[in-house]
Amino acid sequence: MKSLLMIPGPTPCPDRVLRALSQPMINHRGPEYMALQRELIAGLKRVFRTEHDVLIFPASGTGGLEAAVANTLSPGDPVLAVTVGAFGERFAEIAEAFGADVRRLAFDWGQAADPGRVGEALAERPARSLLLTHNETSTGILNDLPALARVGREHGALVLVDSISGMIAADLQADAWDLDVVVAGSQKAWMIPPGLTFVSIRPRAWEAHQQARMARFYFDFTRMKRSMERDQTPYTPALPQLFGLRESLAMLQEEGLEASFRRHARLAGAVRRGAAALGLPLFADPAHASPALTAVGAPAGIDLRELRRRLREQHGVVIAGGQGAYQDRLFRIGHLGYVAESDIVATLAALERSLIGMGWGAEPGAAVAAAERALAEAEADA
Amino acid sequence: MKSLLMIPGPTPCPDRVLRALSQPMINHRGPEYMALQRELIAGLKRVFRTEHDVLIFPASGTGGLEAAVANTLSPGDPVLAVTVGAFGERFAEIAEAFGADVRRLAFDWGQAADPGRVGEALAERPARSLLLTHNETSTGILNDLPALARVGREHGALVLVDSISGMIAADLQADAWDLDVVVAGSQKAWMIPPGLTFVSIRPRAWEAHQQARMARFYFDFTRMKRSMERDQTPYTPALPQLFGLRESLAMLQEEGLEASFRRHARLAGAVRRGAAALGLPLFADPAHASPALTAVGAPAGIDLRELRRRLREQHGVVIAGGQGAYQDRLFRIGHLGYVAESDIVATLAALERSLIGMGWGAEPGAAVAAAERALAEAEADA
Repeated sequence: MKSLLMIPGPTPCPDRVLRALSQPMINHRGPEYMALQRELIAGLKRVFRTEHDVLIFPASGTGGLEAAVANTLSPGDPVLAVTVGAFGERFAEIAEAFGADVRRLAFDWGQAADPGRVGEALAERPARSLLLTHNETSTGILNDLPALARVGREHGALVLVDSISGMIAADLQADAWDLDVVVAGSQKAWMIPPGLTFVSIRPRAWEAHQQARMARFYFDFTRMKRSMERDQTPYTPALPQLFGLRESLAMLQEEGLEASFRRHARLAGAVRRGAAALGLPLFADPAHASPALTAVGAPAGIDLRELRRRLREQHGVVIAGGQGAYQDRLFRIGHLGYVAESDIVATLAALERSLIGMGWGAEPGAAVAAAERALAEAEADA
Repeated sequence: MKSLLMIPGPTPCPDRVLRALSQPMINHRGPEYMALQRELIAGLKRVFRTEHDVLIFPASGTGGLEAAVANTLSPGDPVLAVTVGAFGERFAEIAEAFGADVRRLAFDWGQAADPGRVGEALAERPARSLLLTHNETSTGILNDLPALARVGREHGALVLVDSISGMIAADLQADAWDLDVVVAGSQKAWMIPPGLTFVSIRPRAWEAHQQARMARFYFDFTRMKRSMERDQTPYTPALPQLFGLRESLAMLQEEGLEASFRRHARLAGAVRRGAAALGLPLFADPAHASPALTAVGAPAGIDLRELRRRLREQHGVVIAGGQGAYQDRLFRIGHLGYVAESDIVATLAALERSLIGMGWGAEPGAAVAAAERALAEAEADA
């Protein structure tokens, strides 16, 4: 069956990217590779909005989070981990695994982090680093990153940011917002397959790196930077994803980052309005709803596993379940990356058909109609 | 220009593999992925010749080496690193970076490791782990892995093996040879692009893992195994390379591992005979010459950068330089993975034409003729 992949990563890849993956291998020490890497780093800097370093590691985003921690901290360093869901928790676990003295400031799932409370926590116990999640993939929350980062800087903490599912769907400005380290993952709004993580590093993070004694080799910033300065890598790079990145950077340039943010916000709004029209409970605080994905709670009496099965098997629409304790209490619709209005409409139509088939009282077309109105309003506002 | 990639990795990919890379993304938590991963793990176990665990990490082979070390050792543990080139040295550096007390037993570049001397070194100072290189990519040496591993076991050391450029080109039997951890890399004889490392783990390594206190998260064996037992992964897998792996495992099954070893030995022999017919100095001890690549020393008066440039720009044949101190004193021809006689003949023809063009006294056709004779003899022997 024709399938529509509407999960918060891996996201659908444009044909142009998929075709690029199939290019024959090249010598990663030769002139063709060197020119490619130079071009990619320049493109990444434009997307991160930084004039400082961006490194590429052949790994998933989790590897980038490990790199952020292990390169800037020493065992025993006090860290404040601000968590609003499963990925904030993962960031904290990584810091613990490498020996940091981690204190968590956890907000309820579905809520955003409160900068005021972060400031209080940092005043109570100073931290060497503040771990922040830009967009929490498990709950569909977009944190107020500039405000949180400002609080961290005011208290002298190094600001390490997980923006794996945030960047490109939402605005992020590494230099203007003074973000010391930012981590991204290829399989999200970048529109390329999993296998690469991108890490931006500003001067204060490099200073911290000089003193940082956590164990590292594969993810070592110095080794990677030294190689990249010579247009090389310290070990073999993941060529297919790099070929894909060239295409996706070109597409991002064609669309423009601001246009991408607006598109994501518009599609996210349509999904929320469509879900609400079906009487479904939106999980995330609407004031901080993510432009990248929408988490929806279980409607009374509806089995979410069965709902997802129907969507997949009867309508070819693949959505995600919840994570951790919310595994069967939430479903999540991804709308980041290479996603258009047509995908949103098709997903909402499949959702309402599946729900009606399961006995949920809703009018056929209600969700789609609400989404169409939301899209029209967003156009009128633009 | 049509290009022939004859470096020791990344290696050329079969069309069937390249096409598989372009498959649209799928849900890595869904039934299709779960079935794929089960199939891949079963196939990997056949190639590693093990009934125990094989894990897949989305990373380069260097990441697999880090995993081998960080999962089985604690800071301060005594380690003996047997080095015969740049990659043995890298393995030792990783162990040092994670706090092991590393002693090196270094053999001259171009020589194989002597099991007797390894035994003496282990008798002199017992080691918790013995780090071994199966096939040294920087020099073209194939170590006597079963003999070296036996010595390690006799002295009670855990045997950690880098077989990144060895497996499939050369025989390796994880269970029969009692190899505690073996690390492989996708971009070598596996015929798929870089981006995956495979790690086999036998029961003694799992026991050591229980006590191992080195820092790890991304490469943690327990986290990966627990996920893989449920046909899942702890973070997003590198899907294109996994799609490619399915094809390459099928091709390996069609050819047969024994046939693959014979093919690699035959092609390697032809390269050595061809190079010798040109009067070029073979770098590696002929008794331990690698079936995966051949390193050749600089002929008197020939600039190797210029030689490689001519091969690439005039004949479309891409070969590698040397590594470390041998960067411009060696060139290396890769003949592992998806390589056939036709590639060897074309490479040798380009080599002799380039050398003759640079004033080296050789007869046109001499290298190709010698290679043809070697291939014919190998066929007659078979």
